[in-house]
Amino acid sequence: MTAATLTGKDLAAAIRAETAARAAEGPRPRLAVVVATADEASLWYVRSIAKAATGAGIACDLVDLGPEAAPAHVGETLERLSGDPSVHGVLLQTPLPAGASAQELAGAIDPAKDVDGANPLSLGRLAAGLPAFAPATAAAVMALLDHHGVELAGRRAVVVGRSTVVGKPLAHLLLDRDATVTVCHSRTRDLASVTSQADVLVAAAGRAGLIGAAHVAPGAVVIDVGTNPTPDGGLTGDVDAGAVRDVAGGLSPVPGGVGPVTTALLLRHTLEAARRA
Amino acid sequence: MTAATLTGKDLAAAIRAETAARAAEGPRPRLAVVVATADEASLWYVRSIAKAATGAGIACDLVDLGPEAAPAHVGETLERLSGDPSVHGVLLQTPLPAGASAQELAGAIDPAKDVDGANPLSLGRLAAGLPAFAPATAAAVMALLDHHGVELAGRRAVVVGRSTVVGKPLAHLLLDRDATVTVCHSRTRDLASVTSQADVLVAAAGRAGLIGAAHVAPGAVVIDVGTNPTPDGGLTGDVDAGAVRDVAGGLSPVPGGVGPVTTALLLRHTLEAARRA
Repeated sequence: MTAATLTGKDLAAAIRAETAARAAEGPRPRLAVVVATADEASLWYVRSIAKAATGAGIACDLVDLGPEAAPAHVGETLERLSGDPSVHGVLLQTPLPAGASAQELAGAIDPAKDVDGANPLSLGRLAAGLPAFAPATAAAVMALLDHHGVELAGRRAVVVGRSTVVGKPLAHLLLDRDATVTVCHSRTRDLASVTSQADVLVAAAGRAGLIGAAHVAPGAVVIDVGTNPTPDGGLTGDVDAGAVRDVAGGLSPVPGGVGPVTTALLLRHTLEAARRA
Repeated sequence: MTAATLTGKDLAAAIRAETAARAAEGPRPRLAVVVATADEASLWYVRSIAKAATGAGIACDLVDLGPEAAPAHVGETLERLSGDPSVHGVLLQTPLPAGASAQELAGAIDPAKDVDGANPLSLGRLAAGLPAFAPATAAAVMALLDHHGVELAGRRAVVVGRSTVVGKPLAHLLLDRDATVTVCHSRTRDLASVTSQADVLVAAAGRAGLIGAAHVAPGAVVIDVGTNPTPDGGLTGDVDAGAVRDVAGGLSPVPGGVGPVTTALLLRHTLEAARRA
């Protein structure tokens, strides 16, 4: 068996096109990205968001506080942007300067503008089944599953990774769709014995090649959230795609799977925040 | 094999005694319980909290809005109590009048006074690993496991029930202790095949006798959170104790397990809120 490739490119293009069409109808949505790092990969990602935003008719302000910014200054900036009626979406880019907690600081982002679901209140509202923006990556996994018609109700979903930006919110989104959900992590014993029970397996651990053929049940759907840098400057996922492809029923590629959908949803969230404002 | 009885009575007494000793040292902590129901079981529970509070040197105000209270009036009351410096803990009792959402209304409780972890922000902070009050029932399950020396790191924990007050926060508390966590619910297929993989099984579904011998692995620890009314006016758990006792390694009783620890922790949380104020 060779797994179907669960690409995100078509879906991302469709979301971007729909977002651009709606953005063109009214006042231009505006996203503010707060950066306090000199990390090249992070800055590259921010530029790619800005480019995608511009392409969709969404203004994108880069608010660069520099890698030496004091945590309090980051917090004040997020508060100022939250109070600025011309800004509809606020994104706090990581990494942050030493001593700064992204979770604590994100509490300063108005939930109505929290387009990447970083404020703990957004996560809590999501968990409680109340309206909230989910982190774009977690939302992208769900959108990709839906786009490829993957059934979730009553099925076993296993998420590898318990981060606040992917694993935990994703567990709530999957539960909300009536999947039976297991969360694994670095302390899980005999990972393969747990992951191989999954109908739907999501790898979000940030470890290249963590998931091999032995981790996957025949025919399972595997979504790879990993974006690990390779020596040649590329990206590789958490899944050993060469091995898993022969076992899984479907596998999302890296790059070209969850990634482009994530960026597209960030723009859609910004549009939604602008239209609700 | 006969399961050890994982009683909560000793633990609850110890928590109450320690709380009473600390409460006697300084200004008297005060808990406000907001009630908007005529439900007899709920009112009985509130009276039992008030009695336990008094016994621990904690003042307990019953704020009875009546079963016809408008949701907005409930919200305003929670806001007023949150702003009242003489009140240290605020508890919103369910059920609420038709049309009122406990999750939405609890957003009006100051997280610093949210001693039963009902505000979605408390749940989000808990999930994000930030300081917050956990719902007392979820905290009681953890306290009971610790009291009886149950190892969690690297072990498989299965929670049956996905409520905002027990199942979901408990999943985060167990994850935080490095358990591999699965959440099951009414839509889970072949429940016994999932629950029988648990080293630690927590039944919090609210269905009497849901968990039988076939649901439990030999030697597993089973915590029964169920409090289902019996025809004779008593309480019974979600676990068929007679059957499970022969399979499990340990089983918490109903009544006398999680319940008394929950009430004791509500008082301890109120004391902590008062001492931080």
